[in-house]
Amino acid sequence: MIDTPSLVDQYCHGVLRTELGLGTFETALGRTGTLPAPGTTFFDTQTGFAVRRWCPPLLGLEPHCAPARYLARRRELGVLESGRRLLRGSGISTYLVDTGLPGDLTAPHEIAAAGAADAHEIVRLELLAEQVADTSGTVESFLANLAEALHTAAASAVAFASVTGAPEGLDPRPPGPGEVRGAAGRWLDGRRKHGRLRDPVLLRHLLWSAVACGRPLQLQVGMADPMPLAGFAEATCGLGTDLVLLHGYPYHRQAAHLASVHPHVYADVGPALVRTGARAAAVLAEILELAPFGKLLYSSGARGLPELHVVGARLFSEALGRVLGDWVGDGAWSRGDAQRVAGMIAAGNARRVYGLSGVAEG
Amino acid sequence: MIDTPSLVDQYCHGVLRTELGLGTFETALGRTGTLPAPGTTFFDTQTGFAVRRWCPPLLGLEPHCAPARYLARRRELGVLESGRRLLRGSGISTYLVDTGLPGDLTAPHEIAAAGAADAHEIVRLELLAEQVADTSGTVESFLANLAEALHTAAASAVAFASVTGAPEGLDPRPPGPGEVRGAAGRWLDGRRKHGRLRDPVLLRHLLWSAVACGRPLQLQVGMADPMPLAGFAEATCGLGTDLVLLHGYPYHRQAAHLASVHPHVYADVGPALVRTGARAAAVLAEILELAPFGKLLYSSGARGLPELHVVGARLFSEALGRVLGDWVGDGAWSRGDAQRVAGMIAAGNARRVYGLSGVAEG
Amino acid sequence: MIDTPSLVDQYCHGVLRTELGLGTFETALGRTGTLPAPGTTFFDTQTGFAVRRWCPPLLGLEPHCAPARYLARRRELGVLESGRRLLRGSGISTYLVDTGLPGDLTAPHEIAAAGAADAHEIVRLELLAEQVADTSGTVESFLANLAEALHTAAASAVAFASVTGAPEGLDPRPPGPGEVRGAAGRWLDGRRKHGRLRDPVLLRHLLWSAVACGRPLQLQVGMADPMPLAGFAEATCGLGTDLVLLHGYPYHRQAAHLASVHPHVYADVGPALVRTGARAAAVLAEILELAPFGKLLYSSGARGLPELHVVGARLFSEALGRVLGDWVGDGAWSRGDAQRVAGMIAAGNARRVYGLSGVAEG
Repeated sequence: MIDTPSLVDQYCHGVLRTELGLGTFETALGRTGTLPAPGTTFFDTQTGFAVRRWCPPLLGLEPHCAPARYLARRRELGVLESGRRLLRGSGISTYLVDTGLPGDLTAPHEIAAAGAADAHEIVRLELLAEQVADTSGTVESFLANLAEALHTAAASAVAFASVTGAPEGLDPRPPGPGEVRGAAGRWLDGRRKHGRLRDPVLLRHLLWSAVACGRPLQLQVGMADPMPLAGFAEATCGLGTDLVLLHGYPYHRQAAHLASVHPHVYADVGPALVRTGARAAAVLAEILELAPFGKLLYSSGARGLPELHVVGARLFSEALGRVLGDWVGDGAWSRGDAQRVAGMIAAGNARRVYGLSGVAEG
Repeated sequence: MIDTPSLVDQYCHGVLRTELGLGTFETALGRTGTLPAPGTTFFDTQTGFAVRRWCPPLLGLEPHCAPARYLARRRELGVLESGRRLLRGSGISTYLVDTGLPGDLTAPHEIAAAGAADAHEIVRLELLAEQVADTSGTVESFLANLAEALHTAAASAVAFASVTGAPEGLDPRPPGPGEVRGAAGRWLDGRRKHGRLRDPVLLRHLLWSAVACGRPLQLQVGMADPMPLAGFAEATCGLGTDLVLLHGYPYHRQAAHLASVHPHVYADVGPALVRTGARAAAVLAEILELAPFGKLLYSSGARGLPELHVVGARLFSEALGRVLGDWVGDGAWSRGDAQRVAGMIAAGNARRVYGLSGVAEG
Repeated sequence: MIDTPSLVDQYCHGVLRTELGLGTFETALGRTGTLPAPGTTFFDTQTGFAVRRWCPPLLGLEPHCAPARYLARRRELGVLESGRRLLRGSGISTYLVDTGLPGDLTAPHEIAAAGAADAHEIVRLELLAEQVADTSGTVESFLANLAEALHTAAASAVAFASVTGAPEGLDPRPPGPGEVRGAAGRWLDGRRKHGRLRDPVLLRHLLWSAVACGRPLQLQVGMADPMPLAGFAEATCGLGTDLVLLHGYPYHRQAAHLASVHPHVYADVGPALVRTGARAAAVLAEILELAPFGKLLYSSGARGLPELHVVGARLFSEALGRVLGDWVGDGAWSRGDAQRVAGMIAAGNARRVYGLSGVAEG
């Protein structure tokens, strides 16, 4: 068997502080904000089945017990204690936490405490810009304050993230100062109506400003083909800032291709596994086709439910052990190589890219 | 082992009434209307091999016998008797039959009789519009007659289907009345030359008229990425009409994604298996990654040859049993869940979406 | 077990004549011309691991030995002798060699001698046009000389290849004479700056001129979706010239689809296996889903390193044996069919498409 060391979860969110009933838990599981179709439930998904496999034993129940029974036990223990048991059973030693989601979610230091682990903050660019806009009176002060906020964030945050920065057909060039001022003016004027930052010029300005800071920049690809990012990858090559593509499934082979072609592009492994459950080993194996083994980073993408942090970590460790173990069994890989690659994807690559050893020791 | 109950084939066509020789059978197998390349035969495909595996035993021959021998036996029994033996050996208890294909194909009641099963009609929107145009003198009468024909069809048909309604870049909004009248006028005027309905405005009018009827609407995605349908899915959400995506392979993961995001969107399972034969379990497993288990419906997509109805059903049942059985063996799923999900995809989801229990009991 | 006969490698390049150190070998392995990311190496890829699996034993070392040890042994034997041992251990009996790459690569007759095999030349259209331009003074002489060069090449070359002929949105029609003259004039005028031929009109002219010659035309799809080639495939159907799609991964299912729909379109199998190493059987199985078995051709796409010719051939033979063997074991295929299909993909289809038997006997 190939063992994975304790994991670095290089992209996740906090967990909900409130007690959850069957309905609210199911909604958090569904992720779309919609109700399930009549006659169906979000528990009848790969994610739902994976939660029922891995989480009940951590709370003292049988795997695959009924959702209602699991949630009764969860409430019995309380949200705090069940969260502690789940996170401590996940095998994660370091969490990188995107704090830019709305909702009553725990902060990085709370996840660290609950999970007996380290945690570091990922700053979400769009939210940072919105917060700066809230306290800036003019276009000039907004742009100056934004530059300073980015600079300050870069000193403490482990990475930047952008969730809307990877639209189809992203213009790969940095926008000019006049363009940026114009876009900022229009956005600030219209903010009462359109609070969220979606202006493509400002988003490009944010991305290029982040690139200039030198911290790794995480780009949410969502469920879309990442190939339109090839131009941005080309334009930012050699500037010293790494790009990490998040959530590439079902275009994970394309994400792996970008990571194989551009020295500073990395791809994540994990959120696809949480979504696909029993298929985790098969999906992981597809990611491992093209990506250099030094370019893949584990993450769960979990939000709201500590169950998702657990499921990501367990599915990943089991899938990686199975896939690499099979290759060793076939003679395709040596055992030593397999063990080494497992350590790289589980933690080593993330420690190198985010400078985590330095942070821990510094 | 996971058993599948008797199947609902939620999208198929009738079978040819004429005796078939080696050449005509091969053409029906090839589906493209072209000849095979010199030196090749359509029997040397996954579909061809799957037919030779599953069908000879139903006619008293060894699996994998030579095509010429199989066809000799088929002619010996006669097209009627061989059709009966094949359909009755398929394990299908209900056929939903798209009657909109040209050619001398059996009607739903004939399939029901041959297969000792139930059958219901799916009305193809494009053909309905063409038939209405044949008997309508003016734009006004065409549009009025079309509305009435749709209303009448909705009362007896189990679903509507559109084969050209999912073009890349489908405008998701319903066209305005003036637009529709203009498009109808142009199409009716030019019909001698262009008999088939391909006008994008009229197609959108058909889709939205069908949505207003409340019967499930099946959309043939063909071999194209269904993601351009996301806008139409968003626009029709909450109106009470379900959309069923047909034939998503090799974009079945994208089809499953749409089914996971939109409460009223469903995806089929089956035609991809008929095309990929020995790979059926692998392809089915990919479909099962993202789609909620209540959103998948079995269908064969078979046309012309009862062999294709058989092959779809057998490949599906065997693949589903193998995939879910493996997951139970690994401990990823419980046996009870697996058995329940098998029943849902094989028949239960279709019975719920199309109201078939009500039909059977009513 | 399913055996593959000696292989026809229907698309590859020559090997480097110079001795290679660890760094130059790694660069050749990386294929992108860039350095690996800091802290990573191109040996930590599926290709790197596959080279370490299959090649050391051919030079008398243990599989999976360290790269430095392998390269020391390679230098000890010398580039000529190690090349001979590798190529003769590959199981390839015929190489079709694209001679259009820059660099100090061996010619077809040298590969034949080193590998104790046959070799034939593939003429790369873009290079041929560039060479003709170097010796043509006017647009008229360029176009006349090009036509003659193509005609001459068609008499001796086994196929034509185009590496830039498959851009997204290729206009499927042949350009008119005036268009071609205009584009040729502009390209010849600007050649000092833009030596390479990238003009879309001239490329279309080259493709259509090649189609008129009747030799098979190989189109490099790269890592891009080949579906935009559907129009060109449709436009060239029935003209008597076969199209062979090269390097379709990760769009190999789409390439297989085109091969299944158009009688004159073929797809390759192999370069995807070299890239994906331990995943070769899984990727090969996906290619085998849709493509008629008479439409698939083995090739390595190897360039520079004879290790890549070896790895392609070994991965292919092992993967094909495993995939087809499993299907025979399941009862999905008969043993006789599997053996026959293995022979077709390994060599028979290429012999038929390129007329190799005729060439060998003629």
